Amino acid sequence: MNEVLNCIASRYSCRDYTGEPLTKEQVTALVNAALASPSAMNRQPWKVIIITDKALIDEMDAAAMDVLSRADSAAFGRINSRGGKMYYNAPCMVMVASDGSKFADCDCGILSQNVSLAAHSMGLGSVICGMARIALESPRGKEFLGRMGFPEDYVFGMAVLVGKAGSAREPHELDMGKVSFAE
Amino acid sequence: MNEVLNCIASRYSCRDYTGEPLTKEQVTALVNAALASPSAMNRQPWKVIIITDKALIDEMDAAAMDVLSRADSAAFGRINSRGGKMYYNAPCMVMVASDGSKFADCDCGILSQNVSLAAHSMGLGSVICGMARIALESPRGKEFLGRMGFPEDYVFGMAVLVGKAGSAREPHELDMGKVSFAE
Repeated sequence: MNEVLNCIASRYSCRDYTGEPLTKEQVTALVNAALASPSAMNRQPWKVIIITDKALIDEMDAAAMDVLSRADSAAFGRINSRGGKMYYNAPCMVMVASDGSKFADCDCGILSQNVSLAAHSMGLGSVICGMARIALESPRGKEFLGRMGFPEDYVFGMAVLVGKAGSAREPHELDMGKVSFAE
Repeated sequence: MNEVLNCIASRYSCRDYTGEPLTKEQVTALVNAALASPSAMNRQPWKVIIITDKALIDEMDAAAMDVLSRADSAAFGRINSRGGKMYYNAPCMVMVASDGSKFADCDCGILSQNVSLAAHSMGLGSVICGMARIALESPRGKEFLGRMGFPEDYVFGMAVLVGKAGSAREPHELDMGKVSFAE
């Protein structure tokens, strides 16, 4: 198994970060991985915001948890049992803004996985985090969009949390029932 | 730059395949990469069909080109200028069936990029190919769905073509205008 296959196989969704800031080199590697992503007809229907302002991430976390406490008690309880932080104390959130065009959801998924694998290859934890949307739709959402410089006329595409893992996990088991062959 | 970052940076969308069949080991690696993909709440809203029946791929190609010749003369001309095959003579199509749930488009993108990077890491070409949908929606679509064993109640999610490249290309240039920072 080569290093890429090993990285794909060993990547796991990290929900526990130490909060330690990324180095400049790590951030650069994430940026380059994001921008190298393929997209339908190479339209790159995204803008990528690298959020390393930990205070902003923490305020987004608190605002999103406040929403969740009222909207989804099961999810709220699950996150509280994991430490009480929706964004798991990650020091970096790669926010993917989408232009909302036809194939953009798929393209944002492609980009997110590139970022996640790049992080894992550097020994960092990562998790693709759809719940980042909750902060943007919270009562303080407009303020957060302004502070991060979210582009006008774009919508939430996806986000990836990245940072040094506080604890490691095994990846999910492969479900061979999901595959079939036409030979 | 580690091997994973290098793989991400050097991957390109291959539109020229020799048609040579994949080895069993290559197919296994693609399967494992696909099934290791993260998805929203690990729901894995997909089924993956590994099509290595080259006759089926070629018949799908002809049916899709027939549709395109009537529906989109610009795209039809573009493909004809590249050799006249919509699926570029690829010996393998990884067909991703989606259950159509809320986050499935993004998840199918994640899976597609895992497959594409796995292929590239083994020295194979790949391209994420939304145009595979055209064959499924062609007059012979129902026949193709049956022959590949496409699951009931699933819809086209995405497809990835994989095979030995007939010619290599440079990846697209990184567009640094797509990224900004909130530090």
